[in-house]
Amino acid sequence: MTTTPIDTQETTAATTEEVLSAATVAHAAWSAASTQDRANVVDRVADALEESVDSLVALAMDETHLPEPRLRGEVKRTAFQLRLFGEVLRDGAYLDARIDHADAAWPMGAPRPDLRRSLRAIGPVVVYSASNFPFAFSVIGGDTASALAAGNAVVVKAHEGHARLSRLTETVVRDALAAAGTDPNLVTVIFGRAAGTTVLQDSRIKAAGFTGSIPGGRALMDIANGRPDPIPFYGELGSNNPVFVTQAAAAARGEEIAKGFVESFTMGTGQFCTKPGMLFVPRGSGMLESLRNATLPAVGQMLNPRIEDSFKHALGTLSGIDGVEVLNAGGASATAPAAVLLTTSVERLLADPKSVEEECFGPAAFVVEYDDESQLVEVARTFEGQLTATLQAEVESPVQELVAVLIEKAGRLLWNQWPTGVSVTYAQQHGGPYPATTVPGSTSVGTAAIARFLRPVAFQNFPQHLLPSELRDDNPDAAPRLINGELVNGERIG
Amino acid sequence: MTTTPIDTQETTAATTEEVLSAATVAHAAWSAASTQDRANVVDRVADALEESVDSLVALAMDETHLPEPRLRGEVKRTAFQLRLFGEVLRDGAYLDARIDHADAAWPMGAPRPDLRRSLRAIGPVVVYSASNFPFAFSVIGGDTASALAAGNAVVVKAHEGHARLSRLTETVVRDALAAAGTDPNLVTVIFGRAAGTTVLQDSRIKAAGFTGSIPGGRALMDIANGRPDPIPFYGELGSNNPVFVTQAAAAARGEEIAKGFVESFTMGTGQFCTKPGMLFVPRGSGMLESLRNATLPAVGQMLNPRIEDSFKHALGTLSGIDGVEVLNAGGASATAPAAVLLTTSVERLLADPKSVEEECFGPAAFVVEYDDESQLVEVARTFEGQLTATLQAEVESPVQELVAVLIEKAGRLLWNQWPTGVSVTYAQQHGGPYPATTVPGSTSVGTAAIARFLRPVAFQNFPQHLLPSELRDDNPDAAPRLINGELVNGERIG
Repeated sequence: MTTTPIDTQETTAATTEEVLSAATVAHAAWSAASTQDRANVVDRVADALEESVDSLVALAMDETHLPEPRLRGEVKRTAFQLRLFGEVLRDGAYLDARIDHADAAWPMGAPRPDLRRSLRAIGPVVVYSASNFPFAFSVIGGDTASALAAGNAVVVKAHEGHARLSRLTETVVRDALAAAGTDPNLVTVIFGRAAGTTVLQDSRIKAAGFTGSIPGGRALMDIANGRPDPIPFYGELGSNNPVFVTQAAAAARGEEIAKGFVESFTMGTGQFCTKPGMLFVPRGSGMLESLRNATLPAVGQMLNPRIEDSFKHALGTLSGIDGVEVLNAGGASATAPAAVLLTTSVERLLADPKSVEEECFGPAAFVVEYDDESQLVEVARTFEGQLTATLQAEVESPVQELVAVLIEKAGRLLWNQWPTGVSVTYAQQHGGPYPATTVPGSTSVGTAAIARFLRPVAFQNFPQHLLPSELRDDNPDAAPRLINGELVNGERIG
Repeated sequence: MTTTPIDTQETTAATTEEVLSAATVAHAAWSAASTQDRANVVDRVADALEESVDSLVALAMDETHLPEPRLRGEVKRTAFQLRLFGEVLRDGAYLDARIDHADAAWPMGAPRPDLRRSLRAIGPVVVYSASNFPFAFSVIGGDTASALAAGNAVVVKAHEGHARLSRLTETVVRDALAAAGTDPNLVTVIFGRAAGTTVLQDSRIKAAGFTGSIPGGRALMDIANGRPDPIPFYGELGSNNPVFVTQAAAAARGEEIAKGFVESFTMGTGQFCTKPGMLFVPRGSGMLESLRNATLPAVGQMLNPRIEDSFKHALGTLSGIDGVEVLNAGGASATAPAAVLLTTSVERLLADPKSVEEECFGPAAFVVEYDDESQLVEVARTFEGQLTATLQAEVESPVQELVAVLIEKAGRLLWNQWPTGVSVTYAQQHGGPYPATTVPGSTSVGTAAIARFLRPVAFQNFPQHLLPSELRDDNPDAAPRLINGELVNGERIG
């Protein structure tokens, strides 16, 4: 633990201006740096994070009440994520480099000029930290890592739930940047709602990343969209993450599914954006009864009193709905709430889906019995955009139509696994139609997350010495490129 | 010319509802069709367009006053564009297919599940047609072609400037769809502002494409963003397209550049979104004098009286600005306005850039003299987002800093060519920061335009028979894929 007090006072207007000005200067040099140089710096930041893991985790435990193993795992994940973006930079495919040579016979009806296009840093970015991932979605988490790797300076609005940790992480990151010979102003943390709003409205900021609640995210999104020069706002807002259990699956392994569900919805005290919030089980399978009689595990303390209050309020609203009842409740403690299962009828849900399908952030979920599998399709159609949708099914289960509907609704579909625990990989998709995310074509987890903070620039008839390296004939970093429409894997020409 | 009257009455609320309902049904089947089948249909639509070129062009001449060769060229371009998207579908790289095999040793700290991700149709799309490209940015133009190829049904709001042509094109397209065995409701045209707004607010519509003015585009963008479930709004709104002539270039070929500039800004009566609106020339080079004394060509009739009124109004506003004067004016005719060159000082421009740098749609442009090339960098910094920025320079011209600034401002940078005439290619970029476009990461021309109307979906631990073909182990259409982070070119496995 640090011995000197950590300054988490609200950032003043004057300091905010200094931060923006310094970030803009840092951005200019960083966005022009080579991908290889940026990769090396990103790796050094990952190293520094791991070297400081003890002090970071101690402070995080104090501020978030999350257990030590979880937090150590999260630091590991966060460092891994940075290094994975380093790999992405070294590979160069993310640049989507394209070269069309001049072609007088181009069949469009007019000669084709020499055109070369690749993706460039979008401009300084503001990132709003999440409450529930003090490392992985905070100061140097996925949004910052992808924006930084893409070549952008990042201003991070700290989450008040782990303000001191945010400042300490900032110090670790800035020291690592400086030690790597790079401008530390590439990453700066600001505190307080006023500074967070000022930055979003500033014309020097060109994109935003956010992870949090629907109302909070929507308010910021509206600010971004309302600017004289609107900018992309990449928000990950909320999701119910429904799970559909087919009759065959319930018959084959109903007990195992019920056990997996309880584990998943109570994991991390239900404070995951991918927490499964609704389980649909066949009537007569015994699954509802089994979940009514299960002993729900004791959960840990919630992140902070404000989030616990919100949880209790949301739970009270849901259980107060006519036709909704508590199916099962675990034991509360002096510091932690009880895990709770609610239930209602499919008919009740179909009559007013929005009220029941609202995300309840915390250890609560619905169990809903259905009579016929065709009702699952009907129910699936009622959902808003989701981060995930899960099938617990057997290979012979007739789920084609259900899958077709869920593809329209969710960013990630799971088969006989659970949505919590989002792997950072090349093929991961953490996003979905609104309100899961504000930009349905984007992901905030996985290597494709870098695309959010890039924009294409084409160069027509340009001389070699003024082109970015990936568009030059000699291709010094061996970036993969689309040349006259044909994909050419990272060769060097000439 | 058709002999029966063509119905272009405003679409009623009841018809709008029918259109949306039918488009949603058509979308479901089309988005599930194979890329190969979609490619074949898109090719048939291109064929039908070319087969009907005579009647289409005759009607377009009547409604838009554009000359026959230009319109025939535009039909050719539009058919070419459709076939190019057919190629994109057959190639399959646009799907961005990614496969991560399960990996227990994945260094994130937790086992990696089997994850497979590709891009899917985003949902039914509304497209707002442009006034100035009755084919290439209208009923079956670039927005529709890319949205349709991506697997979406499209509702097109006709531009009132070529309403009858829009209806006739719709008939050609729908007949071709039906003849290809596909649901004709994939493309439907609606008329009138009320229907255009209703469609944008409807929850069944999942994205929008627009080409037009800044006020019109912004109003629609605000509607899209203000929905309970906001959707991506891809608008191409306005651009000044500045041209910077270095001292060396002016010395080497000032006359030639002046001639090229006049040709470019008057082409198509200045009714291109890439019309160069501002030329910066070195004082003492004689270029300003040359342009003052040049004979400006007679231009053609404008698209319609409303656009001519707007042009005259904008020109009046610009020439009424203190410090702005008319440098040269061509001859007007009974039907066509005069081409006009304005001038002002760099100092005047720097004092209030916004008023002078506003797009003036039509045959008018500024010529501005500078004293020192460092002023070009200063001036470039004042510009809002642009579709293009052009350098007329010599290889030895010290333009590095200017290029660095222009990369931040524009989607396409040109070297010693002119921005009008946007080639449809793999590497084309037609977009830029706001207000050039509302989504700076997107393009509305070129093969990358298809990405606007797709969204990613990941499948975790899914059985083969429920996966899209590009994610199955057997990869029947030989799509290129990223497998465990390595790009594998279109091979078939097994």
